[in-house]
Amino acid sequence: MQVTQQPTPPPGAYTPTDRTVPTRSPERASYDKELVHSILDEAYVCHLGFVRDGAPVVLPTLFARVGETLYVHGSTGSRPLRMTGEPDPGLPVCLTVTHVDALILARSAFHHSINYRSVVVHGTAHQVTDPEEKRLALDALVDHVVPGRAADSRPANKKELAATAVIRLDLAEVSAKLRTGGVNDEPEDLALPHWAGVVPLRKGYDTPVGDPALAPGTALPDYLA
Amino acid sequence: MQVTQQPTPPPGAYTPTDRTVPTRSPERASYDKELVHSILDEAYVCHLGFVRDGAPVVLPTLFARVGETLYVHGSTGSRPLRMTGEPDPGLPVCLTVTHVDALILARSAFHHSINYRSVVVHGTAHQVTDPEEKRLALDALVDHVVPGRAADSRPANKKELAATAVIRLDLAEVSAKLRTGGVNDEPEDLALPHWAGVVPLRKGYDTPVGDPALAPGTALPDYLA
Repeated sequence: MQVTQQPTPPPGAYTPTDRTVPTRSPERASYDKELVHSILDEAYVCHLGFVRDGAPVVLPTLFARVGETLYVHGSTGSRPLRMTGEPDPGLPVCLTVTHVDALILARSAFHHSINYRSVVVHGTAHQVTDPEEKRLALDALVDHVVPGRAADSRPANKKELAATAVIRLDLAEVSAKLRTGGVNDEPEDLALPHWAGVVPLRKGYDTPVGDPALAPGTALPDYLA
Repeated sequence: MQVTQQPTPPPGAYTPTDRTVPTRSPERASYDKELVHSILDEAYVCHLGFVRDGAPVVLPTLFARVGETLYVHGSTGSRPLRMTGEPDPGLPVCLTVTHVDALILARSAFHHSINYRSVVVHGTAHQVTDPEEKRLALDALVDHVVPGRAADSRPANKKELAATAVIRLDLAEVSAKLRTGGVNDEPEDLALPHWAGVVPLRKGYDTPVGDPALAPGTALPDYLA
């Protein structure tokens, strides 16, 4: 579904399509692959949308990126995974990731906003059936939560691998959308007495809490320090 | 779409339906209204899913709760709002909110998880056309971002009200889902040398940054201090 007369995208960018060009605030859209990857990689969960019985369903789900492929985690019993079926016709999905970076408090109610970075991926998801790809995808899912962690954990055994389903979604029809910067009040409102500004939201970890049953002498790993 | 032979829900709970009873980890589901409200009220954005040309679309959107009604913000030009049409047939939507509270690092790759709280709302959204309801909804949207803020800002004028569209979605078919607690490793893995535990994520504000053009003497309001 290419937009007609769309200019050729620069190298390192996704090609815009009818459904990745926003109708609202198109100046906030980006198709830059590095930017898209960074937004995806920073998120702990995505929101996966699919259609069931004609109605939309949106579920939060763990995911990971490997190059230009996303892997989405589920159990073999979960609804979107069962819908990919056997033989797998593919499940049309929309996968969305959003970071809220700051609250924008304007003098006018109308110009209140948030600074955010989001990515929307349209495509068709398929079950991962190749055992080697599945194993790599599960490592990627663990490393997505904490980089370096997959190598520092007991790998999945056969029973666990069988109980876990993974679906893949290629990054092809993709866009990012961002709001950055400060307050955009109307010039005639600047003298109003209301405080206006940017309220950044806190990011990152608080102090990790070790499991009470940790083996004696187990230190906090460097990747959490 | 009621589940047959479902017991009567307790007062203060939503009635489970076929699509609000999860197929996976049903013990993590809750229909408690207070819990649902608290999860919704703490979120800055929701993910709004709808169907366009047979395919799912999931977009991050500002929203607010007033009692048992959600109001979702948009411009009059945005796709989901245009789809509600005139006369308004209603747009089937799924509105989902998720908080990631902590990362769960297990000794086994398989038991890695996150602590989260999510709410999924199924229903049909309608445009708000009553001017008074729209004004109240816009106040609620501002107060949702920072409680008490609507009264400390310049209210929307006629032009701004006309440029803003609001859709409403009643809280009827609703469920929450939560994971709390610590690591759930297999007993035979407890002696493994891998660190395991809970990594809480940071929440809340960092120091607010005032707009450079603030009127002289404008103090940081108490609701941000």
